[in-house]
Amino acid sequence: MEKNILADHARWPNLEDSIFKVGGEAKKAIEEKGREKIINSTIGALIDDDGKLIAFDSVYDTLKNMDKRSIASYGAIEGDKDFLEGVISKCFGNYRPEGFIRSISTVGGTGAVRHVFWSLLGEGDYVICPNWYWPAYMTMCEEFNRKFKTYEFLDKDFNFNIEAFKLALDYALDKRDRVVCVFNSPANNPTGFTIDDSMWDKIIDIIKDRAKEGKYITILLDVAYIEFAGDGSQKKFFEKFSYLPENILTTVAYSMSKSYTAYGLRAGACIIISKKKEIADSVFNSMKHSNRATWSNITHVAMTLLTEIEKDKEKSKSYKDELEKYRIKLQKRADAFMEASKEVGLITLPYFGGFFISIPCDGSDEIAEKLKENDIYIVANKQGLRFAVCAVSEDKCRISPKLIKNAIDFINK
Amino acid sequence: MEKNILADHARWPNLEDSIFKVGGEAKKAIEEKGREKIINSTIGALIDDDGKLIAFDSVYDTLKNMDKRSIASYGAIEGDKDFLEGVISKCFGNYRPEGFIRSISTVGGTGAVRHVFWSLLGEGDYVICPNWYWPAYMTMCEEFNRKFKTYEFLDKDFNFNIEAFKLALDYALDKRDRVVCVFNSPANNPTGFTIDDSMWDKIIDIIKDRAKEGKYITILLDVAYIEFAGDGSQKKFFEKFSYLPENILTTVAYSMSKSYTAYGLRAGACIIISKKKEIADSVFNSMKHSNRATWSNITHVAMTLLTEIEKDKEKSKSYKDELEKYRIKLQKRADAFMEASKEVGLITLPYFGGFFISIPCDGSDEIAEKLKENDIYIVANKQGLRFAVCAVSEDKCRISPKLIKNAIDFINK
Repeated sequence: MEKNILADHARWPNLEDSIFKVGGEAKKAIEEKGREKIINSTIGALIDDDGKLIAFDSVYDTLKNMDKRSIASYGAIEGDKDFLEGVISKCFGNYRPEGFIRSISTVGGTGAVRHVFWSLLGEGDYVICPNWYWPAYMTMCEEFNRKFKTYEFLDKDFNFNIEAFKLALDYALDKRDRVVCVFNSPANNPTGFTIDDSMWDKIIDIIKDRAKEGKYITILLDVAYIEFAGDGSQKKFFEKFSYLPENILTTVAYSMSKSYTAYGLRAGACIIISKKKEIADSVFNSMKHSNRATWSNITHVAMTLLTEIEKDKEKSKSYKDELEKYRIKLQKRADAFMEASKEVGLITLPYFGGFFISIPCDGSDEIAEKLKENDIYIVANKQGLRFAVCAVSEDKCRISPKLIKNAIDFINK
Repeated sequence: MEKNILADHARWPNLEDSIFKVGGEAKKAIEEKGREKIINSTIGALIDDDGKLIAFDSVYDTLKNMDKRSIASYGAIEGDKDFLEGVISKCFGNYRPEGFIRSISTVGGTGAVRHVFWSLLGEGDYVICPNWYWPAYMTMCEEFNRKFKTYEFLDKDFNFNIEAFKLALDYALDKRDRVVCVFNSPANNPTGFTIDDSMWDKIIDIIKDRAKEGKYITILLDVAYIEFAGDGSQKKFFEKFSYLPENILTTVAYSMSKSYTAYGLRAGACIIISKKKEIADSVFNSMKHSNRATWSNITHVAMTLLTEIEKDKEKSKSYKDELEKYRIKLQKRADAFMEASKEVGLITLPYFGGFFISIPCDGSDEIAEKLKENDIYIVANKQGLRFAVCAVSEDKCRISPKLIKNAIDFINK
């Protein structure tokens, strides 16, 4: 590579967004053939049956009634105090872990993951992650020169592959002293899988066992889809992160994107849990420094929204009702898809909640291409196909599995 | 430092915000004594004479009339196409430089500066900057392990200190192959100083002379206050950055914070200018990668605001009228302050526009403390005092210089 003004570490090819590409094709097909004809399962946002983005009234009415000066003004660098307290209680619900808990505002869940990869690892250290993952994790590892190591997500019975996790952790700790273990659960993107409570016990036991002196293990819980993963009890696992040894840090990437249908407002938080006050404080200080050095402060109106809705009983109730309504709608779509899959013999990964269902298969690119002939637009990744139940009506969720099954059989015949 | 789970490079003490502290004291004093009694010159935002934040109707009416789904949705990773074109024309006005120009959305001006420090320098390389500067530059250099070298901003006649700049540049290039030269002009924060067009010729000549083979010089123009620095002709200097040699890159940190009174919406852009298409594209790709790896995408509504206002003639006119109204108000306040300073013999740095006027002095901390007795709240920094004309009424701007002069004489007697 010829030396030029761009620094060597910062050279990257144009970041292709394959999801954006197939999404664009779906849009074009809708324009040509009409919405009814097309199944667009590419969008990672809640879409109503009429094809329109769902944006909660409780959120956007509050926004539109807000004093313009409040919207215009800067928030605090670390995040506004009420917001920082609010996200902790919103995130944990009835299952707040014990220990020293801090939170810091971040630009979406992305920003929280960025902060964890940046502050808890040095260059060359490992992020370990299941092999069904949100691609931005890898982009961040590239950007900051962290190593990204994946392991087989599920075993042959479709349980979390604890053996594969253990091997990956041992591998990373054998080579380096620091590791971040990413768990995008509950309601994993792209699979809808949730690690259950008894499996969490096993995972934590392994981490505790491996956290020998001089070794540092950070657990990153990316819970972007948590509000669409159950009626509240899906948060119970948070209690398990109370008082872990001081060389284990628990971090949570909290996002308002899905839970408040506030994708475009770019708000989230990194929550820090440690048994030791000094550690919780020092990680907070590190991330506050990062805030100033990357974006100064986050969208003020998003922080105010969370707090205003929380403190106003009526607004809070409207918000909860809306969330519940769409959570159930999502569940019905997923049920329809899963039932139909069973009927036609389409194998999917287990779905427990969230926006996506995944279909493991070979030749996913060709299958996705083939499916366009049947007016289905779907995202292909290395391990299979991602169907966005968040974006497809129940009726279309019911008819899709057969079409997908046929395409798989056709390509892999 | 005892090793713990926080990585060594990411350890920082709690980032103290001295401006926030003195601002808090001013607020308390206002509550106790009433707004009329207090001069609060600490706030870095346009404040009306009644003490309220100015938030343009043209901007916030547009926001409130926007479809909630548009606000809720994600923007593109690199920024929406219309926005990326819009910021280029908004920023340059009638003086668009020639060459290959790219822009990328960033979280405020901060994000643009971050991207430049990150992508155009390696660890240990230098950012050189006048010694009256926005402190976040230094925080970013700390975060990413870039060296921050300041030089004397103005010479004894209060002209840009071209000799000091040359020495700093030579120093950095003697040690390293890459350097970023930051110029927060026009309407510098914290001084209000603007580098004039003939001085720009000298600066560019020096940079061209020093850009030998194997040496790479990035010019960063932080123009956060540009809309409050004149009636348009202050943008003429942009033309000078046409077709510079390929080992000189020009970057512009553009911010919507001040120009749209949209501080809390966190939107800006990094504009890239190169004579070579491949270089402009590769820097864009690098920054797009950074976008994905730090915040994914920026506040969608802010991007839409810029485009909607631009494309609607009526809105565009209202916006320009509001901007002009407040630019003139700001100018009147600054005139009052400068005239009164002259009358009482208070020495200030030359002011040409923007939100602040600076008073060079020794013992700034003690002076700021002393001024509280006279109900003036002002920001002290290493080189002197920063008075925010953006936040103080014309009447109060007129009476402040005498009080400041008295306090300086008292402390330095």
